[in-house]
Amino acid sequence: MRATTIHGPGDIRVEQVPDAALQEPTDAVVRVELACVCGSDLWAYRGVSKRRPGQRIGHEFVGEVVDVGSEVTSVRVGDRVIAPFMWSDGTCAYCVAGVHTSCPQGGMWGKRGYDGGQGEAVRVPQADGTLVSVPRGADAKLLPAFLSLSDVMGTGHHAALAAGVVPGSVVAVVGDGAVGLCGVLAAKRLGAERVIALGRHEDRAAVARLFGATDQVAERGEAAIERVKELTGGLGASAVLECVGTGPSWETALGIVRDGGRIGYVGVPHGMPGLPMNDLFDRNVGVGGGVAPTRRYLPELLADVLAGRLDPSPVFDRTVPLDEVADAYRAMEDRTALKVVVKP
Amino acid sequence: MRATTIHGPGDIRVEQVPDAALQEPTDAVVRVELACVCGSDLWAYRGVSKRRPGQRIGHEFVGEVVDVGSEVTSVRVGDRVIAPFMWSDGTCAYCVAGVHTSCPQGGMWGKRGYDGGQGEAVRVPQADGTLVSVPRGADAKLLPAFLSLSDVMGTGHHAALAAGVVPGSVVAVVGDGAVGLCGVLAAKRLGAERVIALGRHEDRAAVARLFGATDQVAERGEAAIERVKELTGGLGASAVLECVGTGPSWETALGIVRDGGRIGYVGVPHGMPGLPMNDLFDRNVGVGGGVAPTRRYLPELLADVLAGRLDPSPVFDRTVPLDEVADAYRAMEDRTALKVVVKP
Repeated sequence: MRATTIHGPGDIRVEQVPDAALQEPTDAVVRVELACVCGSDLWAYRGVSKRRPGQRIGHEFVGEVVDVGSEVTSVRVGDRVIAPFMWSDGTCAYCVAGVHTSCPQGGMWGKRGYDGGQGEAVRVPQADGTLVSVPRGADAKLLPAFLSLSDVMGTGHHAALAAGVVPGSVVAVVGDGAVGLCGVLAAKRLGAERVIALGRHEDRAAVARLFGATDQVAERGEAAIERVKELTGGLGASAVLECVGTGPSWETALGIVRDGGRIGYVGVPHGMPGLPMNDLFDRNVGVGGGVAPTRRYLPELLADVLAGRLDPSPVFDRTVPLDEVADAYRAMEDRTALKVVVKP
Repeated sequence: MRATTIHGPGDIRVEQVPDAALQEPTDAVVRVELACVCGSDLWAYRGVSKRRPGQRIGHEFVGEVVDVGSEVTSVRVGDRVIAPFMWSDGTCAYCVAGVHTSCPQGGMWGKRGYDGGQGEAVRVPQADGTLVSVPRGADAKLLPAFLSLSDVMGTGHHAALAAGVVPGSVVAVVGDGAVGLCGVLAAKRLGAERVIALGRHEDRAAVARLFGATDQVAERGEAAIERVKELTGGLGASAVLECVGTGPSWETALGIVRDGGRIGYVGVPHGMPGLPMNDLFDRNVGVGGGVAPTRRYLPELLADVLAGRLDPSPVFDRTVPLDEVADAYRAMEDRTALKVVVKP
C-alpha cells in the first residue's frame, strides 16, 4: 500500500510500504477514507520534532473497517469508524477516568513500528478501546466533520473544559489555527457569553465568526493584551484557551487572563519560558490542559454532529489526493491553507 | 497601644505605636482578642521577605469592634468579628467573583501605613467588605476556631478546591504545617475518600489523623513519591494540595500527582524551579490556587464551626501573651510549636 513518510525537514514523500495487517487479536485494519495534516505535524516537518528518516506520519483519519482480530467485539468489517489521534485500551484506570492519552497500552499513530494516518490503510491496535463507529446510513457529506473529531475539535473542546468554560463565561482564544478555531466553536457550544478570537488572518477570522466569535482582535503582543483588556472592562477573560504553545502565545495568554481565571492549554509546548509562578499565585490564575483525550469526547461530539448541532468542517479549506500530500504540508507551512484533507 | 514590629531577621519586638483610629468613613477599629503567627510570617522573620525596620506584622485576628466610621453598616460596636488576612471592598468585580485577594481597594495587614494583626487593636479599612460578625452569644471557647478562619483553614480549603477535591477523591497533602493540616481537614470535609498526609513530625501526624488523614507518609523526596505510588496502585493522587511552596515540595507534588489530576497550591512560592510544562502537558496535570480569598469562604466555614461540624483549633498548640510574641516566632521557626496564638 502507499503511505506518507517523512525523511527530514521539509521532505515529505508517498512511498510503497507493507500492507496494514492484523498482528494482534485486538487489532483492526481500517481502510482510510479521509486523513488530514495537523499543525503538530508541522513541528516534525520543520525538523523541530525529530523523526527517523522514512518514519510514518499523520494521526487523524476516518475510514472503513476491513479486517478485525479475533478478540475485537465493538466494531465489525464494513463499519465506518473515527480514530482518535491516539489509541488506547478503554479499560485501564486512566481510560476509565477519561485520560485515555495516558493509557499504558496506548500510543500515537506513526510512532516507530506503527502505521500513520496519512496512508491507504492503518493497523489499529486496541480496536475496541480506540475506534468509534458511525451509525450506518449517516450522511457521507459529514465525513470531514467526523474527521475533525479525530483531533482538532476534540482538542478545542479539551482546551475549553480545561479553561473552565461554563455558561456565561468571557472567553479568549489565543491561536487562529484549526485547534484555536475549534476552541471558539467549543466555547460557544459550552455556553460562553463572549468569545474573543485573537488572530491576524482575515480568512481565519471569518471562520471564527462563523463559529461564534463575538469579538476579534487582530493585534499581537502587548497591543493584543491592551485590546482584550479594553473589551473586558479592564479585567481580561475568565477563561483563556492557549492553542499555540510558544513563548509569545503564552505571554499573551498570561496577559489577558483575569485574576481568578484559568488558562486551558493544548498547544504542544515548544520553547516556552517558565511560568511566572509568583504572578500566578498572587492572581489566582490556574493552568490546565495538555494532550487532549479526544477518545473521551468522541461519543458526545459525534452525537452533536449527527444531530446537526455541530459542524467543525469549515476548518478544512483544501483537499488533496494522497500523491500530493507534500503540497498539503507546504501549503499549511506557508499559511496558504488552514487545514488540508488528504484523500487516499 | 502596643503592637508587634519586625526590625530585621529574627528581630521581633513589641513596641508602643499610635493607637488604632478611624481614618476613613469606611473604617472600623477592632480590639484584638486573639491573633497568631503564620508560617508566612516566618519568611519575613528569616529575612527572605523584606520588611522595613519597625514595620508591623501579623495578619490573622479576631476581636471586638470598638469604633466604626460613618459609612459602615454591616458591623456595629460590640460585635465580635473575624478578619480575613486581607481586606477588600466586597463590591468590586473581583470580590463579587470571589477573588477578594485581587480587590483594587484591598491590602494585607501590616503593609506600610496599616496596622498589623499582632497588636492590641487594628484599624480595618473597608470594614463592610472585610469583617464577618460572629453571632452574639456564640461560645467564647470557639475563638481559636474562629481565628483559624482568618487564614489557615480558609487557605487549606482553597487548596482543596483548587486541586479539585470532590466526594471520592484520592487526595495527598504536601506539607504538615498548619495550612497542610487544614488542607487535610478541608479535603475530608469535601468528601475525599482517602487523604494521604505527608510529613515527618509525629505530633503533626497526630493532628492529621484527628483531621481525617487515612494514610501517612513520613518519607521525603523520592521515597515519599514511591510510597504514595504504592498506596495508590501506582497511579498517584488525583488531587494534590501543595502547602509549602519550595522546590522540594513541588518536586514531591509533581511526582505524586496522577495523570489527569490537579495540584492545588497555596504555599507562597519561594525559590521553586519552573514547572516542567512538557511533562504536565503529556500527563494532563493542572495547576491552580494561589493566595486564598479566605473572605469568600468565611461565611460557609463559620457556619460549620458554629454547628460543631468543623474544628480546626487543634492547629494551635501554644498561647503566649503579646509581650512574648518573639518567643512565638522562635518556637515556630524551631519547629517546637506548630502555630502559636498571641493574646494581647
